[in-house]
Amino acid sequence: MSSVNIEKLKEIVGENNVLYHKADLYVYGSDSSVHEAMPEAVVRPLNTEQVQAVMRYANSEKIPVIPRGSGSGMCGQVVPVQGGIVLDMKAMNRILEINPQDGYCRVEPGVVDDDLNRALKPYGVFYPPTPASSCAATIGGEIANNASGGRSVKYGAARDAILAMKVVMPNGDLLSFGSTTRVAASGYPLERLMVGSEGTLAVIVEACLRFVPIPKLRCLGTAKFNKLSEAGNAISDIMGSGCQPSMLELIDKIAIVAANKAAKLGLPEVEAILLYEADGMTKDVIDTEMAKIQAICEKHNCFGIESSYEEKERARIWAGRAKLFPSLSKYDERLASTSLADDMAVPFSKMAECADKIHEIAERNGLVMTAYGHCGAGCMHTKILMDTDQHISWENARKAVAEIYDFVRSVGGTTSAEHGIGLSKAQAFKTEKAASLELMRRIKRAFDPNNIMNPGKLMDGPDDWVEATTLRYQSN
Amino acid sequence: MSSVNIEKLKEIVGENNVLYHKADLYVYGSDSSVHEAMPEAVVRPLNTEQVQAVMRYANSEKIPVIPRGSGSGMCGQVVPVQGGIVLDMKAMNRILEINPQDGYCRVEPGVVDDDLNRALKPYGVFYPPTPASSCAATIGGEIANNASGGRSVKYGAARDAILAMKVVMPNGDLLSFGSTTRVAASGYPLERLMVGSEGTLAVIVEACLRFVPIPKLRCLGTAKFNKLSEAGNAISDIMGSGCQPSMLELIDKIAIVAANKAAKLGLPEVEAILLYEADGMTKDVIDTEMAKIQAICEKHNCFGIESSYEEKERARIWAGRAKLFPSLSKYDERLASTSLADDMAVPFSKMAECADKIHEIAERNGLVMTAYGHCGAGCMHTKILMDTDQHISWENARKAVAEIYDFVRSVGGTTSAEHGIGLSKAQAFKTEKAASLELMRRIKRAFDPNNIMNPGKLMDGPDDWVEATTLRYQSN
Repeated sequence: MSSVNIEKLKEIVGENNVLYHKADLYVYGSDSSVHEAMPEAVVRPLNTEQVQAVMRYANSEKIPVIPRGSGSGMCGQVVPVQGGIVLDMKAMNRILEINPQDGYCRVEPGVVDDDLNRALKPYGVFYPPTPASSCAATIGGEIANNASGGRSVKYGAARDAILAMKVVMPNGDLLSFGSTTRVAASGYPLERLMVGSEGTLAVIVEACLRFVPIPKLRCLGTAKFNKLSEAGNAISDIMGSGCQPSMLELIDKIAIVAANKAAKLGLPEVEAILLYEADGMTKDVIDTEMAKIQAICEKHNCFGIESSYEEKERARIWAGRAKLFPSLSKYDERLASTSLADDMAVPFSKMAECADKIHEIAERNGLVMTAYGHCGAGCMHTKILMDTDQHISWENARKAVAEIYDFVRSVGGTTSAEHGIGLSKAQAFKTEKAASLELMRRIKRAFDPNNIMNPGKLMDGPDDWVEATTLRYQSN
Repeated sequence: MSSVNIEKLKEIVGENNVLYHKADLYVYGSDSSVHEAMPEAVVRPLNTEQVQAVMRYANSEKIPVIPRGSGSGMCGQVVPVQGGIVLDMKAMNRILEINPQDGYCRVEPGVVDDDLNRALKPYGVFYPPTPASSCAATIGGEIANNASGGRSVKYGAARDAILAMKVVMPNGDLLSFGSTTRVAASGYPLERLMVGSEGTLAVIVEACLRFVPIPKLRCLGTAKFNKLSEAGNAISDIMGSGCQPSMLELIDKIAIVAANKAAKLGLPEVEAILLYEADGMTKDVIDTEMAKIQAICEKHNCFGIESSYEEKERARIWAGRAKLFPSLSKYDERLASTSLADDMAVPFSKMAECADKIHEIAERNGLVMTAYGHCGAGCMHTKILMDTDQHISWENARKAVAEIYDFVRSVGGTTSAEHGIGLSKAQAFKTEKAASLELMRRIKRAFDPNNIMNPGKLMDGPDDWVEATTLRYQSN
């Protein structure tokens, strides 16, 4: 591996946009995962031409390049395990076009999700695949990970919203994929292939996205359950009965306690709460939907149903859910919340079993784990709460994570619902997709013959996430 | 190129499932396009193992293999331009699973679209990406071409409905792509890459599809216009105003006259009719939607608005639209309807200009062309009506087709909306995607190093569609 020529990079992007001091590199050595590894340089391109020049240089010297948004990813996608250049895309953050007539917008990859939605609001439309981290997450990062979030149950994921894309290839070529039209059947959908590629194929420099009308009304409801499995069964029944909620979230007791502690929500500390939302253009259609969902919850022995069309009340309840991940560290001051086995997808009918299984595995391995997530989209989140100072905690986590993914695969689920693979889930991913890994490598080679794009991830990720990098925790 | 060993194929699929007599080969030498070319053999596999064995044989001998559904494609996708084996997938037509609880079904590729929807109906759900040819079109063919149809404006295309897929690779390996869960962020979405690949990458042997609840009510409306451009502007305004029709179709005068002649619809023979539908779970929400659409049509000087919730009336009007393609041959007995420049997608705001442009180009080249299509999804259909006995007609068609695609590209449109590329559109496709053709070839090579999967299509398609194959018309 060549070492990076800092002067060359400064020539391309200007002196102020190359970082190489240890303190700076340290910041870019981690994301929201447990991993860390130092890059050799951080480059902040201001435009496509600069990205092209950086890629031409890196490709000729075979230096790894890791495109990065806000670093809010939870699995180590942007941790530079083989060193090289972190390409910080946050300065390319212009909204290039909002075209309500043709139903799309064009943005640079560094645009923050919330900023895009603020800009779209005056047009009466919104970009739906919005993760809980939308105040920081960039559109480029969301696309790279196929982010989705609370409303994916109705509106789909990033993959469903992408119409077209401009990318810089590893050799510096600028290519356009897809088209701005609503439908297209013009050959391989390369714009979709890029979604979920986690920076391993090419650098996204522009995205053309669909948006949808903001519904006139939204109604948020909650139902409480004394058994986690009953809440799980309600989810499966709601989704199997033709209901079309715009959100359907599960929160288990551990998450409720943590959210109450962190955000003073005053939620009842029951075994499980379902949060559900219906939206639409008339009250009538929403009332019908809410009544159907509530009837199913009641069939599964829920109690304490509440619902509100009132924006303030909805926002208060939702704010707690959005902050659940950071809140979890408040559950028990001695236990840190780590992003491990953090999101998987399972069929609706396995939701109840999955929630119970998570708690069983946690208990058996001396850990605390929570079950929550956008369950209406099949997405189950967990976090492992543990004493990260203790080496034994990591050993237990290693076992628990493996058991969880064994379970997920056994019920026809998949390794990640919306957070992606990165380093933490590479082992589970490689087991799940074993038969296709060689094909994936050949596809990567078709884009990136020198293997400079975020190497050592996905199909080339580590077999053991604990040993893959230095952990961001010191244990003994 | 090796010649095909018929005995070997009989060993694999049985004597009755190999066709090689000239009369049989002739049938499989064409689809619904203008092209024809003879295969060396037709093989009808009954199961995945047989597909694997055929592929292993063909790959070892480097014999082209062309997977084929019902042959309803309009651009020559399944015309075997380099000979070889046509793999007729129609016998693999089992619905393997309908799972309402988990919101998906699994089918073999030969299942006919209407048969699938008949089987889904008792569960209160439907598979929405349904082309007008749904009585014949197979799910495998629809996926290979990213078919969509009338309701794609609300429900999306095949690409949006696919969750997972099993494919047989050219070397005979059986791979699983995607997962049955509603969301997934587990690496490259290979199941989506397959959609639109037109048989050039691998053989689809199973598809796992999403379905959606059948709406309780549907209301169909029509509005008439004295100017085609006013109808086009209404479309653009409807889509730009946050309306969410479940169908929005344009039919121009030529199509109206033809549909009336063929199906005795009694439609008023005005310059353009818009057909629009709203669907939903309550009348209230549909009435709101219909009123919005009608108000916009009125703003653009429509007249004679009619609408009906009544199924029989809706079916009668829609039946005429569904049969438009065959009906077009009735417009003028001397002119045959040819599938040329048959579908493109343009931004909504260019719809009016595009419709006018089609007629202008037709007139300038001494041809008759019609403008119709699922315009709410950006899809504009045409057909060229011409005296196919005359050589000059083909020369004129060649010029007209090129002019249409020049226009489509100039307004940011794409070569195909839902019919795919095949042979007829390869030239336009290669012009549109010029910068990415090499990447596409490398991706094909990643799947198919011996280039046996439907060779000579998409990025390797012909530069001149008129000379590409024998035409299915004799001219002098």
